[in-house]
This record gives sequence, C-alpha cells and structure tokens, in this order.
Amino acid sequence: MTTDLYRKAGVDIDAGNRAVALMQAAVRSTHSPAVLADVGSFGGLFALEGLPAQPVLVASTDGVGTKVKLAAEHERWQGIGHDIVNHCINDILVQNARPLFFLDYIAASRLVPENVAAVVTGMAEACRAAGCALLGGETAEMPGVYAEGAFDVAGTVVGLLNRDDLLPRPRAMAAGDLLVGLPSSGPHTNGYSLIRRAVAGRDMAQLLDDGQLLLDALLAPHRCYLPEINALRAAGVPLLGMAHITGGGFVENIPRVLPGHLAARVELSAWPLPPLFARIIEWSGLRIAEACRVLNLGIGMVLIAPPAALPALQKTLPEAIVMGLLMPRTGDAVILNGEFA
Amino acid sequence: MTTDLYRKAGVDIDAGNRAVALMQAAVRSTHSPAVLADVGSFGGLFALEGLPAQPVLVASTDGVGTKVKLAAEHERWQGIGHDIVNHCINDILVQNARPLFFLDYIAASRLVPENVAAVVTGMAEACRAAGCALLGGETAEMPGVYAEGAFDVAGTVVGLLNRDDLLPRPRAMAAGDLLVGLPSSGPHTNGYSLIRRAVAGRDMAQLLDDGQLLLDALLAPHRCYLPEINALRAAGVPLLGMAHITGGGFVENIPRVLPGHLAARVELSAWPLPPLFARIIEWSGLRIAEACRVLNLGIGMVLIAPPAALPALQKTLPEAIVMGLLMPRTGDAVILNGEFA
Repeated sequence: MTTDLYRKAGVDIDAGNRAVALMQAAVRSTHSPAVLADVGSFGGLFALEGLPAQPVLVASTDGVGTKVKLAAEHERWQGIGHDIVNHCINDILVQNARPLFFLDYIAASRLVPENVAAVVTGMAEACRAAGCALLGGETAEMPGVYAEGAFDVAGTVVGLLNRDDLLPRPRAMAAGDLLVGLPSSGPHTNGYSLIRRAVAGRDMAQLLDDGQLLLDALLAPHRCYLPEINALRAAGVPLLGMAHITGGGFVENIPRVLPGHLAARVELSAWPLPPLFARIIEWSGLRIAEACRVLNLGIGMVLIAPPAALPALQKTLPEAIVMGLLMPRTGDAVILNGEFA
Repeated sequence: MTTDLYRKAGVDIDAGNRAVALMQAAVRSTHSPAVLADVGSFGGLFALEGLPAQPVLVASTDGVGTKVKLAAEHERWQGIGHDIVNHCINDILVQNARPLFFLDYIAASRLVPENVAAVVTGMAEACRAAGCALLGGETAEMPGVYAEGAFDVAGTVVGLLNRDDLLPRPRAMAAGDLLVGLPSSGPHTNGYSLIRRAVAGRDMAQLLDDGQLLLDALLAPHRCYLPEINALRAAGVPLLGMAHITGGGFVENIPRVLPGHLAARVELSAWPLPPLFARIIEWSGLRIAEACRVLNLGIGMVLIAPPAALPALQKTLPEAIVMGLLMPRTGDAVILNGEFA
C-alpha cells in the first residue's frame, strides 16, 4: 500500500528494487577479498592491506556532462558506465594513484530499471578492467528535478599512492622537457553541450572519414589510461607530471601541473586531427584556438617527461606522440603552435 | 571567445569559476594537515596517519532526494549542504566508522554561483562540525538534463574504522536487547516526494503545534549523530548495532542490521509523534503502518544495545528513547505495536 501511495507521488520503489537486483551480479564481479561487505549494507567496506610507507588516499568526484543526454536520446546506456569510471580513474591517475574503489550516483525523474542496470553493468566492466571495486552507489528517482527522459550520472573514485610517488613534480620540470600525448577515443566526456549543438539536425548514421558512424564516434567511451601508466611504471620510465585533458582542453589542463616559470608549447601539426573533431569544428564554427579550450582534439592524456626518457617511453607505448615541449613562460601558460594537417 | 561560444551552448564557464572562488574559503576551513593538496588539483589528497591495526575504509554515496526541489523553490540553499553531509556521515556511522573526508556533486540546468556557494558553505559547516575534510567536488551545468530552476546534490563520504570495531554484530544480538531511538530534527532527507504532495497548496507560513513554521520544519537540516555516538564510545557504552532511519523508515532499515532469527518490536507509544509528521500523515491520508515505511516519524537513529547498557546509555544521552526491543522472529522483521499518543 505504501508502495502504491509512494508511486502516486512519483517514486517507484519496486522499479528501484528490480534495478538493484539486476545490477548486483555485475557489481559483485568487481569485488576482491578487500571488499568486506556484500551489496546492500549502509556503506561499502574496503580493507586496507599492504599499505606503502606513507599512504595517501586520492579521491575525485565527477560527472560525464551532457553526454548523458545524447546517450539517453539514443538509448546507449552501457558506455556511460565506462565513461564515468574511466574519467574518474584518469583524474587520480595523473597524481600517480591507483584506484581502490568507485561509487556511483544515478538519478532521473523516473528510473527505468533495465537502463540503470545497463549503466551499472558498464561501470562494473570498466571497474573490473582497472582492478577497482565497485563498492557502492545510489539510485534516485527525482520527479520534477530532472527533465523528462533525462538522467544524470556522477561517480567518486578513491585511490592510493605512496607519498614519495606523488605527481606532478613541478620543481623537477625544466625547459626542454617533452609533452607526450596519448590518443583519446573521442571527445571522452567533455564539450558535449557544444558538441550537441554542433551535431543537432545532422544525420547520426553518416560515415566519418575514418569509417566510423557519427553516433558511434560521439558516444565512444572515455578511454582509461591506467594500463599505459602501469606499463610505463613497470618499464621504469620516469614521468614528471600528467594532465588529463578534460573540460578546458589543453589550455586549462596542462597548466594545472606546470610551475609558474614554464609554459607548454603544443605543436598542432604533431598529430592528425581525428575526423570527428574536424567535423565538430566545421559545424560549430569554432576556431582551433577555441577548440583547444573545450575539446581534447584527439589527445586525452598529456605526459611530461625528460627527453632522456623518450626512447623507453616510445618503446613501451608506440602510440605515444611527442606533441610539444616546455619552454620558459613569458606570457600564456600554453602556446598553440602551427596547425593541424 | 570560447567562453562566449560555450555560453551560447548553455554552459557558463565564468559563472562556474565565480562559484568556485566563493566557496574556496569555506572548503579550506575544513582542511586538517592530513589534506595535502589545495583546492583545484585533479584529485583531493588525504594522508593516512595513525591507522588502527586493521584499517577498513567505509564509503557511501547518497543524495538528499527531492528535498532539493523544496529548497530551490524557497531559496533555502545552505541547509541542503548540511543535509547531504550529515546523511552520508550517519550512513557510515552505523558501521562505527568516523568520517575522514567528503566530496560533493552539484548539478543544475544553470548554476547560480551564489546558490552553489551557499550549498557548499553549508557542506563545509557540517564537515567542520564533524571533523571531516571537504576534500573535493564537482559542479556541473547540464542544460536540458535538469528541469528549469531545479538542482541536485550528491555526496560521498569516506570513513575509517578498525575491523574489530565493525557494527552491526548480529551474532551478539539476542531477544530482549533494546531498541533505543535518538530524535530526528524532522523528515531529514527522506520521503520528500510524498511530503511535497502532502503540503502542496498549504500555507507554508502556518505555525505547527510546536510553534515552528511549516516551511522551517520541512527544511530543518538532517541531524548528524556523530557527537552522540562519540559520547557513547567515550563512556564505554557497548552497542550491538545501529540503523540510520532513511528511505524505507523503521520497516526497511532496522532489519538491515538484524540476524534472521530476531525481529524488532517498535512501541509507537514510546515517543510523541512530532507535529510535522502528524500533519503530513493527516494531509496525505497515509496510515501509520505506511508512514513507518517512508518517514522517520521523529526517530532518526535506532541503536541496539543490551539491557545492561541502558543506565549508562541514558546517563550519557538523556534524550535517548527506549522504543522497543528484539524478540524471536516468527513473521515480519519489524512489528509495529500500539499507537502514537
């Protein structure tokens, strides 16, 4: 009876319970023995074992922006789960942390259990790939708060590092250090309000020059750079810093890890502009300098490394692109040089 | 230029930056020396020191439900900050964890920097009172995802405990153990979709029987029970479990900490039904049994303690109410007995 009354008020408790049941198997598959409680306790429990000498927790909360709206319009739920997990992991990866666990928040005016389960299954896949426990989460039906048919997803990741390994090391950076880019899988989770306007009314089934469907390219999940950074660590390649290219693009994200006396010169000719970004720029009328403040333009993670590290870095990660270098700062913190081929 | 273009797409970067500046002082005031990075780095850094023998992290993500809608309609932002922090802290408190840090997520179709700053200032006040660092957060403008004028708030808390101190201890519970309630400050953060329907069209400035304005009673911040639980610990009062009375009320929350062979008998005559709940029940046409599945009805935290602990418990917390006891389970996990005076 309560349930009926409550449903009249716009909250469907049964639907929520059904969604919880559907996602539990996926969530459990991410649990190592460090996870002490099963799904459903008040808080998730994570035992800390084998801690480094100076353990530091690193935590970050984020959303995936209005990519959720595009995903909802096209009923592509699972990729959004990958998006939020990988975005969060990359955000703490730049400080050299490895993820321990992740928690999610999914809300809508009305939750469709199957869609929630698809999002959470995507989260669980991304967590499992990263060795990260999906420790808990909350689903909320918020009639009147969310637009009809829209939903939002937020996530929090908690990672660990030894204090001596903390990045960036701005005092160790010098003019001549290299900016090394790792390719993105698409716009990741940034710039989608602008992107959605740029593609409004376009044929989503059109082929881009690389053979991808426009819709597939737009909804390609945010790439996780954990395997690449782990490979560099295993190979002993020293990094001075990393910048996750999120909202604000190169122009706002690279300076976050630089000392005040150094600027980053980005050579736009160093890598080919992926076809999706070329179309977005064309359709939106954005200038390249503007695009570099909003979109990742094909580079999702920028590493800063001393030149001596380059051979080992490129041997470990053949896809790595030398995309610029540090130089004394006399004005802007990021200088965009040249143009895309 | 980018900013202008981006604003046209519905994302106001300058407004976001202004809000960030406004809230930074409040956030910094919650930072102990354990917090290593200043506001603005990719992830928040929290040094783990003085760890117990078997450290376990406890994490929980939650929202405050459609109380945000009521708060937005009446421009009462700061209390929502207290709501989300205290809700999260109580959720891990029941496992006997103490909060280390909190992260927030605030999203709307359009962020009003002053309102965001008020919410975050409320969060910072609640964090500071609990000795919990406000370690990070994300604000997101999501045109088209949120209803016009509405916003949502989610939060994640991470706490710590020694594994031996973990609650509940269902195997230590026995028939005759007491249910001891701690008063709530109002509906806290649960049942607001129903509550909003019940109060729709009512005079928000009317006085309730206890002299509170209806609106004030509806928006009273969620109470944090950390001081009370700390006092019990300091006094050496043993607890067997705690249930935070959130969505699902007594009926769904108390069983989460019980062993399968025990039921909780709740004596509804043990405490007076607060006037706000009486009005909500009257206006909504809810039966008491239904209300016990949706609302906290004046008890926000239920402690389970052996009878021998009662004198010390009541001496430490004079407001504590013996509201029932455990008995052998033969049917329902919660039995509602008697009626409110």
